[in-house]
This record gives sequence, C-alpha cells and structure tokens, in this order.
Amino acid sequence: MADRFIATYQVRAEASAIAARAAEIAVEQSVEMPLAAIDAPDILRDIVGQVANIAELAPGRFEVRIALSCATAGADAGQLLNMLFGNTSLHDDVILVDAEFPPAILAAHSGPNFGLHGLRARGKIGRRALTCSAIKPQGLPPAQLATLVHRFALGGLDFVKDDHGLADQTYSPFAARVAACAAAARAAGGTTRYVPSITGTQDAMRQQIRIASDEGIDTVMLAPMIAGLANMAALTREFPSIAFFAHPSLAGAARIAPPLLIGRIFRLLGADAVIFPNHGGRFGYTPSTCRALAEAARGDLAATRPSVPVPAGGMTLARVPEMLDFYGPDVMLLLGGSLLAAHERLTEATAEFTAAVARHEYKEGVLF
Amino acid sequence: MADRFIATYQVRAEASAIAARAAEIAVEQSVEMPLAAIDAPDILRDIVGQVANIAELAPGRFEVRIALSCATAGADAGQLLNMLFGNTSLHDDVILVDAEFPPAILAAHSGPNFGLHGLRARGKIGRRALTCSAIKPQGLPPAQLATLVHRFALGGLDFVKDDHGLADQTYSPFAARVAACAAAARAAGGTTRYVPSITGTQDAMRQQIRIASDEGIDTVMLAPMIAGLANMAALTREFPSIAFFAHPSLAGAARIAPPLLIGRIFRLLGADAVIFPNHGGRFGYTPSTCRALAEAARGDLAATRPSVPVPAGGMTLARVPEMLDFYGPDVMLLLGGSLLAAHERLTEATAEFTAAVARHEYKEGVLF
Repeated sequence: MADRFIATYQVRAEASAIAARAAEIAVEQSVEMPLAAIDAPDILRDIVGQVANIAELAPGRFEVRIALSCATAGADAGQLLNMLFGNTSLHDDVILVDAEFPPAILAAHSGPNFGLHGLRARGKIGRRALTCSAIKPQGLPPAQLATLVHRFALGGLDFVKDDHGLADQTYSPFAARVAACAAAARAAGGTTRYVPSITGTQDAMRQQIRIASDEGIDTVMLAPMIAGLANMAALTREFPSIAFFAHPSLAGAARIAPPLLIGRIFRLLGADAVIFPNHGGRFGYTPSTCRALAEAARGDLAATRPSVPVPAGGMTLARVPEMLDFYGPDVMLLLGGSLLAAHERLTEATAEFTAAVARHEYKEGVLF
Repeated sequence: MADRFIATYQVRAEASAIAARAAEIAVEQSVEMPLAAIDAPDILRDIVGQVANIAELAPGRFEVRIALSCATAGADAGQLLNMLFGNTSLHDDVILVDAEFPPAILAAHSGPNFGLHGLRARGKIGRRALTCSAIKPQGLPPAQLATLVHRFALGGLDFVKDDHGLADQTYSPFAARVAACAAAARAAGGTTRYVPSITGTQDAMRQQIRIASDEGIDTVMLAPMIAGLANMAALTREFPSIAFFAHPSLAGAARIAPPLLIGRIFRLLGADAVIFPNHGGRFGYTPSTCRALAEAARGDLAATRPSVPVPAGGMTLARVPEMLDFYGPDVMLLLGGSLLAAHERLTEATAEFTAAVARHEYKEGVLF
C-alpha cells in the first residue's frame, strides 16, 4: 500500500447502509463515475479508491478508512486536498477526520523551512515557550500600528504579528505599514520580530515577501485556506530564508478535523507556526482537539520539521501558567486584545506576559 | 451605508443571548479585539462591524445581519471572504447565509468575462440550454481521454470538460492531455469545446492557460476554493478572452450557503459557469437550494454578467426534461458517468442527450 494514502472519514449512516456508503465515498474521491463504466483493469486496480476498514464508533456513526492512489494526488498541495475531500465536502454526512501519508506524499511536501527548532535557534530562544502578540485594530494608520510594535517589543516578545484582518487596505497600505513596523521593531533594540500578514494572489504575496525582506523581515503570516494551498507550499519553497505562520481564517468552514487540516496539512505545506483557537477562549475547540492539533503540529512526521502550535483567540495573562502546563514549552503563546486593553500600560503588560513565560516552572508529567 | 456591506448569518442561540452573540460576531469580523481597548473614535465609528438586524427564525435560531466596512475588504477577493467569514467559520453555531454588496464592492470585482450570454453568443447556441459532459476516469492516458472527447463531440455537446480529479498527474500530464483532447475536439468537426481543468499555483494555472490557449482552447475550469479566490479573480482579468468554469470541490458543506458562495461569490470573481450538485443526485442539496443558487448565478447583480448554472452530480438522460422544466433554458446540463456508462454507444447516448435538450418544449410558467 506504499502507493496509497489513507483518508479517514466519520460517516453518519445506518448500520445496514454503511458498506455501500463507504464504497460510494471511495469512488467519489477517486474516479467519480460508475465502476461499471470503467473498462480499464489497471484503473480499477490502481486508481479506484479502496475501502480499507469500517468501524462502528457509536450507533449510526462509523469511521471509514479509504485507501486512495498517491498517483492521483501527485505533488500538488491543492490536488492533495481535492483528492482527500473535494467532492465529499459536499456531503454533510461526512467529516474528514484524519489522513495517513506514505513516504511518496511526504517527500513531495517539504514542510517548514525552520519549524519549532529553527525558530528557537534563529531567535536564541532557548527552551522556554515562544511569545507573540498582534497589532490591531485594523483601521489604524501605519504610524500608530508601528507605535504598538515598538511598545510590544519593549515588553520583550519574540514576535509581533499583524492582525489577520490587516491586508493592503487604503488606511494601511502593506509597504508603508511594513516599513514603519519593521523600523519600530529595530528601534526597540531587542530581538522582537515583526510578522506582516501577506494576502492576495501568489504574485501579490511574492511581492509582499520581497518588500518585507528588503526591510529585514524574515517571518510572515498567511491564511492557507484563503491564499490557496498550492500557493502557500510554493512560497515556502521560493523563500527558504523566510518563516511562515499559518492563520486559520476560513479553515473552520470545511468539516475537516482541525488536527488534520491545521496541524498536519498546514505543517506539511510549510507552516513554521500554526495559529488555532485555544479551548476556553472565544472559540469552541475542546481541550482534546487542541491537544491533538498540537501533537499533529509538532509530533513525529517522517523527516518533516515540527511546527510550533500557537493556541490563541481571547487568551489572557491569567491563563499563561495553565496553558504552559497544558502544552509544555514547545508552544508559542499569543496574547492580543488582552494586552492591547492595557492601553498606556501596553509595554508593562507585555513584560508581565514575557516574564510569566520565562519564569514558568513546568510540573512534572508535562507530556512534551 | 454605502461604505458597508451586509453579511447575513444564521446563528443558534438562546433568545436571551442572541444580542450579545451578534455583537461578538460584529467584532470578530472586523476589529477582532475588545472595543474597550480601542481608543480611536473613527475606528469605532467607521471600521467596527455593526449589528444591523436580528430576527428570530425559529426557537433558538436567528438571522443576524452585520454591516461590515467596505474599507476592510478592499478590492481583494480573498480578503472579502476573510472579512465575511474568516474567523467566524471557526464557530460552529454560525452559518454564513447571505451577503449584500454595495457598488464599491461590486465595482472591485468584474465578474464573468463572458457569462451566460457571452457563452451562448460565442458558441452560436441560441436559446436552448447548454450541454456538457466530462472525461474520466482519471488514470486514463491522454490518447484514451482524447478518444472520449472525440466521441462526445460527435454527439454534439457544447462542452466536454476534464473530470475535476484530472490535474497534472504522471499518467496524464496537462500539456499532453490538452494537446490530444484539443486535437480530438477539432477533428470531430463540430463546435464542441474541450475544457481543461487547471490546477496548482497562480503561476502554474497561468502557464496551463497559455498552453491551452496555444491549442486554440478558450475555456478552462478551476476549483476556486482550492485555487485561492484571489488567484481566480486575477486569472479571469489576466485572460479576458478565456471563459472560466468554477468547480465546487471543497466548497461544499462549508457552512457558507451554496447560493452565496457558489452562485454569487464565484460569479463575482469571474466564473462564467458554476457547477454544483443538483437535487436528487449523489449530493444532498434541496430543490430550493438549487433554485436559489441558480438565481444567484444568473439573476440581476448590478452590471455583473450572469453566470450559467450547471447542475450536476449523477444526472441522467431520463432527468433532462425535468431539469429543463425546473431551471428553464438558461442552464448548462452536465451528464458525465451516465454517458460514459454507454461504453461503445457513447456518441449515440450523447446525441440522445443533445437532441433531448434541443427539442425540449418548455412548459408555460417556467420562471426563467
């Protein structure tokens, strides 16, 4: 089965119907036509999806594993998603919950340029958790965003990223914002990296990376589900000296399990850090989903570098110790609005955050 | 409110909680931070999302209309989706059901290069419904796919498209497939257009369009949710003489209402024809969803050309009259596997299909 990859779906069905439903999914995700209309025996043998296993999880709910041909996915990241869930995403009785990739697929996707260890080494961060905040609200002009970068940097953060709503708007054009924010980070005299959000077409993102690079920036953020998966993978290869943060915007809309999409697939496509909604914040992910996502992002995956999981979405200083106990030090903590709410005390609140991360003593038994 | 666009969500909530939940969505889709942390009065006034209306649809289910700033979306198609549903897609109590765009947004997106009327005129198709089929299964080499194109063309179809699983795989490289299929369509001597599926990065898709164009092809297909929305919009502008079909791969079950995403948004980004799962086929869309999608694709939308709705997914010859009565003549019918199942009678079955479309007498009272 080295020439097959495994897609695992959760399917709602009656017990009497699941075998037929599984066979339908195997066809839908491969040849997408009646098998009786296929004359070629090699296609029936090598290309048509195969039902590898069906297991009942609960009455009316099944786990279905389908073995799909690696040749159909090829080396293109978008095509991989197309074959994993393209048409089946149109069926609301199915969720894509997992995927297993053989060496042929893994070798086609190079993963992060830096990843967890590279980001640590580049920033001389040691073994503590990494720290991050975000500049917002959108609507502010570049000079005011740059002031926020400067004050965050004085508080000792590793990264200050653009809010994911910042694009190339008239009130804050990309080039002007990046120049101002990069200068502000430098002026703080520390090691804080400003991380601009890149948007638009492959051409536009490429141009934005060049602008950022000219300002001495070595880390950018994009939203893979908006940017296009193939574009993301191509940009990470075109710019091997740049680290990429992946933002989950629009990634929740697809009924693909977050550990697979945000953890494993975004990592495979080259995300050095993957941002996701932490449990207990503004979003509904459970602790077990978050743990599985973190494990998918940084656990073993052939020779692919681990990504840094970045739990976020309404996190506060008060939650820092609990989050560090939950995730261990191989994590990046991202506090945004709760730091910005400190207004004129922004630098001090940021310093409290970075100090809390630096001095945290991990309990015994932390998994990672 | 000309500087605002309206996003309409369906939200599950208790009646006592809906006002607060609506306000949260308005913040999440705009500034994404606590309003108390925002000092600038112009941002509070001009950028923060505003709850325009809340209406109870049923106990525990509400329609919430949020007015979002056009300035935050700008002219980028990806950023428009980001602002419509980016972070809120991560909340499973919310579905994006509709959007209303003022002239500022509509003017930024040029819509189809040809659209319904342009495709008719270019193909001298007159007032009947348009016809289409697909070559598959993937796994076939270019010569055999070309044979299918030739036999379909002899049956008199307007369009023969690639299966959406066909990309640039080793068993059927794009350039070789397109050359063979374009030659096969020409050799049939009719007016059938072969429609290759383009995939990968913006660069790759651009190159594929050039290859196709060199073969005399003037119509291509892509999957916007995989290709990246901004890429699609950019390609439609870069190649004004090419018509674009939009495939719904990965667009389904996205908790974005299909009439909005596939009908209106894909059209706005430049889809000349939008493929979607017809009711009663392999997929679960209802007749009312299909009708709304068709209306969104071809109804009035400022100066934007109408797209052709393409109901598909397991359609058969037997259903042609009923589909024509349902959609009227402003539609493209797409039969794939059911024609391929005719094996050596492929051309004859295709001719029966095209004849059924040509001779159909529309009942009085057809809406369109």
